[in-house]
Amino acid sequence: MFFVVNFSMNKLEHIGIAVADLEASEALFTKLLGVSPYKREVVESENVITSFFQVGDVKIELLAATHEGSTIAKFIDKKGEGLHHLAFEVDNLEESLTEKANSGFDLIHTQPKPGADGKIIAFLHPKSTNSVLTEMCQTANK
Amino acid sequence: MFFVVNFSMNKLEHIGIAVADLEASEALFTKLLGVSPYKREVVESENVITSFFQVGDVKIELLAATHEGSTIAKFIDKKGEGLHHLAFEVDNLEESLTEKANSGFDLIHTQPKPGADGKIIAFLHPKSTNSVLTEMCQTANK
Repeated sequence: MFFVVNFSMNKLEHIGIAVADLEASEALFTKLLGVSPYKREVVESENVITSFFQVGDVKIELLAATHEGSTIAKFIDKKGEGLHHLAFEVDNLEESLTEKANSGFDLIHTQPKPGADGKIIAFLHPKSTNSVLTEMCQTANK
Repeated sequence: MFFVVNFSMNKLEHIGIAVADLEASEALFTKLLGVSPYKREVVESENVITSFFQVGDVKIELLAATHEGSTIAKFIDKKGEGLHHLAFEVDNLEESLTEKANSGFDLIHTQPKPGADGKIIAFLHPKSTNSVLTEMCQTANK
């Protein structure tokens, strides 16, 4: 008996945007998107505070640093505010990480870690993804 | 009688990614996304060749310059390859442009212009959108 494991990205789960001032950017994106953010969430492990907008089937996640050591603070110092990462939903994050490593992608996280919005997450290194920082995520209790 | 005009972004239509070598990046994103591109299209007016992937309900559009004067060539010279723009679908592009201008956003295009994939399009300037280059689009014959 064979089991077919699906390694493709099922859907775009969210787009991460690095911002310097969360409150100002929430107001700006509310005006831009025509919808208000539906929640804020702090991700302690990443030293970020996030704010989520729903546009159709996709979430827009604003990311602001809560600490100068945050990767978001470093990103903004280096590149300025703007598009930060794409996050794709997968069926099985552990198996997808193994498959991506075997396909030649560089992993930032070799094991799933807790992320915002009830997900487990892991990032691929942008040097192996055409400079597009890529997150894979899976609903935590799936 | 009142008509309610919907100015919100209906859905994320696509994400534009600037690439230097279309063929190499098509192979890379095929491996990354687990799906092959479904078409290539040249947009003469922009001096770009595009390649489209479908992931769930959203398109990933790779953009390569066909001419050194292309905005994509200039973007890569300045910032390198990577995330370039977000495109949102609207009901009525002309009315949305007026509404966005009235809301304080800077327009790159004050009138709709032909884009790839059977759309009319217009861009908002990233200096007014938190450095996120933002396209609004509408199906051409809608």
